Amino acid sequence: MERVTIIGLGLIGGSLGLALKAAKLTDIEIVGYDKDTPTAVDARRLGVVDKSERILQKAVRDARLVIIATPIMAVRGVMEEIAGELRENCVVTDTASTKAIVMEWASQLLPATVSFVGGHPMAGKETPGVQNAEAKLFADKPYCIIPAADASEGAVRVVTGIVQLIGARPFFIGADEHDGYVAAVSHLPLVLSAALFTLVRNSPAWPELSALASSGFLGATRLASTDAELSHDICLTNREGVLHWLDRIAEELGRYRELLQQGQEEELFKTFARAQLDRDTYIAAGPPVREPVAAEELPTSGEQLAALLVGQRLVRRVKDIGKLLEERQERGGRQGREGRGRR
Amino acid sequence: MERVTIIGLGLIGGSLGLALKAAKLTDIEIVGYDKDTPTAVDARRLGVVDKSERILQKAVRDARLVIIATPIMAVRGVMEEIAGELRENCVVTDTASTKAIVMEWASQLLPATVSFVGGHPMAGKETPGVQNAEAKLFADKPYCIIPAADASEGAVRVVTGIVQLIGARPFFIGADEHDGYVAAVSHLPLVLSAALFTLVRNSPAWPELSALASSGFLGATRLASTDAELSHDICLTNREGVLHWLDRIAEELGRYRELLQQGQEEELFKTFARAQLDRDTYIAAGPPVREPVAAEELPTSGEQLAALLVGQRLVRRVKDIGKLLEERQERGGRQGREGRGRR
Repeated sequence: MERVTIIGLGLIGGSLGLALKAAKLTDIEIVGYDKDTPTAVDARRLGVVDKSERILQKAVRDARLVIIATPIMAVRGVMEEIAGELRENCVVTDTASTKAIVMEWASQLLPATVSFVGGHPMAGKETPGVQNAEAKLFADKPYCIIPAADASEGAVRVVTGIVQLIGARPFFIGADEHDGYVAAVSHLPLVLSAALFTLVRNSPAWPELSALASSGFLGATRLASTDAELSHDICLTNREGVLHWLDRIAEELGRYRELLQQGQEEELFKTFARAQLDRDTYIAAGPPVREPVAAEELPTSGEQLAALLVGQRLVRRVKDIGKLLEERQERGGRQGREGRGRR
Repeated sequence: MERVTIIGLGLIGGSLGLALKAAKLTDIEIVGYDKDTPTAVDARRLGVVDKSERILQKAVRDARLVIIATPIMAVRGVMEEIAGELRENCVVTDTASTKAIVMEWASQLLPATVSFVGGHPMAGKETPGVQNAEAKLFADKPYCIIPAADASEGAVRVVTGIVQLIGARPFFIGADEHDGYVAAVSHLPLVLSAALFTLVRNSPAWPELSALASSGFLGATRLASTDAELSHDICLTNREGVLHWLDRIAEELGRYRELLQQGQEEELFKTFARAQLDRDTYIAAGPPVREPVAAEELPTSGEQLAALLVGQRLVRRVKDIGKLLEERQERGGRQGREGRGRR
């Protein structure tokens, strides 16, 4: 019986628990910890974990895999508390929305005897909490995997295996690139959404505006309902990335404003038409096809969990992760200026 | 048999047809016209209309109610073409997203023998066309009603009856107020969404960004898939309103930027928390309760359609619309600066 420990039983930690349980792994015990005891009790009751522990150190003892799914700003404290308790070759991962800072904390705080592989599921919804956890939350969603420089190949396989097991799409990426990219596709939409909502909400015409608002406004402001702690922590830990994209969107909005102000109707029409066409094309294409992962023999020693999760459960396998990473970084060097060189 | 004519059989015109048919009115014939003949044929085939006409003038002849559901910029031309064909006491309405300009066209172009009552259903989706029409598109959505100064009381009742019949919430409002308000809750989100999409799409990192983007980005950019003609026409016909709100959102984003840049973390957290709380409260409250409309005798002459639609089909009735309008305008004067005084 191998132990997987989930620390932080909110929407993400809870959904991970449900997704792992849905995979019906044998010989795996899922242990949960949450600093809020009623949450841990709920998690146990909802079947998110097999067992919950009230003491963090005890929860991680003997675990082969530890998943830190707390708010970003709590990750550091958790690492400090668990560092001395982790068994040798333990694989540690997290789910935080920003990665450079988490990778730095892991490198400073975790012992050299364990492997840290950062993770970030690009999934969520605006209703937080374990009571809203879903086994399918990660299905077909990208899941960023950011191995620490000294993470073992086996550890990367364990995390990749978990990601595939829960139905997500592994996306290998460096921490700085990650933070630059998610600032664009995740953090900027969040701030835009909050700003749009607060602007309209604070208008003296709110009684009329709120009565008139329909699905367009509700959809455009959906992310304003994001847990405020998460929004705040994201802005704090990815400040440069968010500022960069806030400046870019200000320019872009300025461009639209200019076209409108100057009555450049044809150009304005073309701009909207291009947006419509490109987005429809993007939507029609669907998510990128999951690259088939070829089978290759598993490491024969030390990686019991990898064997359990990757070897027994999946016929496909993580192939040449190093190569994928290299390729992506090469491409990133050519095309991915947005994700680099800002710091 | 009274005739209702729908001009423009796209998503909105088509959905109106389906919604009216779903009400199973007796003695009403729904006639459709679209300048695109295949669309008109499709509309007939899909049961959106009882009959389609290939000649606009013929389509409106003898109609008691004419609904203009074309793109905004086409409304003027339609009014010019039908003006000479409308029977006495015909009720004309439209569905355009901007109202001041449409009211002006109606006042210039339609004969004094007919009544114009502007309409704007706050409903839609990003898949246009009659093939995406839905009878339930307007259910529980606000539907703005803007009677022309010289519209008869009976005409307002007809349009209000139609709005209630299709399950929408009548919202009486002046044209300038309307344009100011929808600029905030509809047109600004549209431009924001398009700007966010084009910004990210034009990034050299698009291959990575598009692979990483998840439900947050998709939701925040949904309105970028709005029909480009609609987006363009909105900006053109509500330029002042859109410019006003573009300036306001630029300020609001600047405020977020400032808090982030200056490391005002507590204030930033409070701002996000306030947005989350206010939006959750707004969502939890649901749409405003539909004011019950008391019964009152119908006009006894000339308003056959009103009798058919309002009298026979609804037990409740439009009560004191003038009073509602007055109240709203009074409130608008106090609180609704956003919707007025910009022109």
